[in-house]
Amino acid sequence: MCKPAAYTIHRHDHHLGWDNSFAPIRTIAPGETVEFDVFEASGGQLGPDATLENLAALDFSKVNPVTGPILIDGAEPGDSLVITYEGFKPSGWGWTANIPGFGLLADQFTDGALINWQYDADTLAPALWSDKARIPLKPFTGTIGVAPAEPGLHSIVPPRRVGGNMDIRDLATGTRLHLPVDVPGALFSVGDTHAAQGDGEVCGTAIESPMAVTLTFDLEKAEGLKFPRFETKEPVTRHLDASGYDVTTGIGEDLFQGARDAVSGMIDLLTRRHGIAPVDAYMLCSVCADLRISEIVDQPNWVVSLYFPRLAFE
Amino acid sequence: MCKPAAYTIHRHDHHLGWDNSFAPIRTIAPGETVEFDVFEASGGQLGPDATLENLAALDFSKVNPVTGPILIDGAEPGDSLVITYEGFKPSGWGWTANIPGFGLLADQFTDGALINWQYDADTLAPALWSDKARIPLKPFTGTIGVAPAEPGLHSIVPPRRVGGNMDIRDLATGTRLHLPVDVPGALFSVGDTHAAQGDGEVCGTAIESPMAVTLTFDLEKAEGLKFPRFETKEPVTRHLDASGYDVTTGIGEDLFQGARDAVSGMIDLLTRRHGIAPVDAYMLCSVCADLRISEIVDQPNWVVSLYFPRLAFE
Repeated sequence: MCKPAAYTIHRHDHHLGWDNSFAPIRTIAPGETVEFDVFEASGGQLGPDATLENLAALDFSKVNPVTGPILIDGAEPGDSLVITYEGFKPSGWGWTANIPGFGLLADQFTDGALINWQYDADTLAPALWSDKARIPLKPFTGTIGVAPAEPGLHSIVPPRRVGGNMDIRDLATGTRLHLPVDVPGALFSVGDTHAAQGDGEVCGTAIESPMAVTLTFDLEKAEGLKFPRFETKEPVTRHLDASGYDVTTGIGEDLFQGARDAVSGMIDLLTRRHGIAPVDAYMLCSVCADLRISEIVDQPNWVVSLYFPRLAFE
Repeated sequence: MCKPAAYTIHRHDHHLGWDNSFAPIRTIAPGETVEFDVFEASGGQLGPDATLENLAALDFSKVNPVTGPILIDGAEPGDSLVITYEGFKPSGWGWTANIPGFGLLADQFTDGALINWQYDADTLAPALWSDKARIPLKPFTGTIGVAPAEPGLHSIVPPRRVGGNMDIRDLATGTRLHLPVDVPGALFSVGDTHAAQGDGEVCGTAIESPMAVTLTFDLEKAEGLKFPRFETKEPVTRHLDASGYDVTTGIGEDLFQGARDAVSGMIDLLTRRHGIAPVDAYMLCSVCADLRISEIVDQPNWVVSLYFPRLAFE
């Protein structure tokens, strides 16, 4: 089913940050398929046996390397680069961390915490957390984008209208992504693969896991997109939803605070019900629970809900 | 399957706004089941054959009546009122409107617009919109809540930590909702039933449809909830997701603007692809598309995504 790749771009061909002056590794034609070998978000600083000491020693100037850039022949500003996800080769290991200063509740969770995950790269059976929870897996690319028009080096951390660190968990096998092209040739790069994540990535990290990803590139001329869009041909949550959800809410005038309240409510619930540490509940929310905006029209108060899949604790 | 109701509270027993001095219609004991007959959101001002003239003449002082209140014996502040959704008796008709001044894109859609829906109340087969789209149905209560502690009359429009106009589309058959109790006896009311809605209710209205709803009441003493929570035992989107989704995004520093950008992107896509009017695309998003927060941690830019179910246009 998976289209074979004409080329493989290895992860030693990576860059830190986005800059439209970076020289392309290779030029490809529309219609071609390329395999990318990518680092997890630490860029190799954390391995399968990482410790809290390794986490504390993280060099943030080296995080989130992306493999590339490649130049797509004929891509021009105003076009969309259309990227079809052909498939992933997962590595079988990953990590999730609470990194001090990073995450939706960074003010409440000030100490570093780390989960090392092992999973079956062939079956992608749910990954086990202690003897209490199992997390369904769905590999995707956390960071995928093209170079911005504005000159200079731009941080890799925030996503932009040309993509980047979007952390959209449905950018997975079978999805077709449209990215707005800002510069001639697009200058595409990809990295930061994840084995699982909920909508929101609330603690700041997913199951960060190195993988190879195979992508096919096409162009939609002059689509004039303002922001990325994508389509899936299949359901997106059936690996998670069979037993329904526990849902907590935050209600008020600010969506950001509503999201914080919903996550806090879920941490309280999971901690009380399962006897786990709050920081573990926080990280489990990040890898499998979904932030949704239930209503955004009943002035002046909006409702944000966090959906935690019940099967994780069955 | 559905527990029989011991009582029916008719919709002539309704109130406008929340006020903890309203006298209860009836007192019930925990464990009892009650059927509520409720108005749609216009409170009977719009019927199955409503026109734009009726919409323009809406008296907003009469919108969103709720049936009740009922007093739950033994409920005290700090308890949770636990409400199990036993089932609905839908009416077979409903309306969706763009009401000037109301909705996520009120600045862009300044003219009134109205869709009258007919649906099969027995089969709940998807409701047809012209010859182009069909909207899967899932009846739920838009407004469900208890009286706030603060004295006086409070607008029915915004939801609060004690519930109210939450418009959470999964408050449907089989769900169990926990509401924080603020006053002795809780003083529970319900109304504003919807036949379908996406997360966000972006144009400000759903498929607004009168129904009866049967609920069972219990108490969880001293749960100490800050905000409502609920649990579903079943998947929540399988009526929508079989053919996957078209997804648009908004990326930037403000979640509210991100949601606006994602909805605008979807209106552009649906308008171009299906040759429909932008206001119709907007209303269709409101009844079936879901706003999700894809990431809320990659400072300073967050990603909001709007998921439109592809089966609606198949």
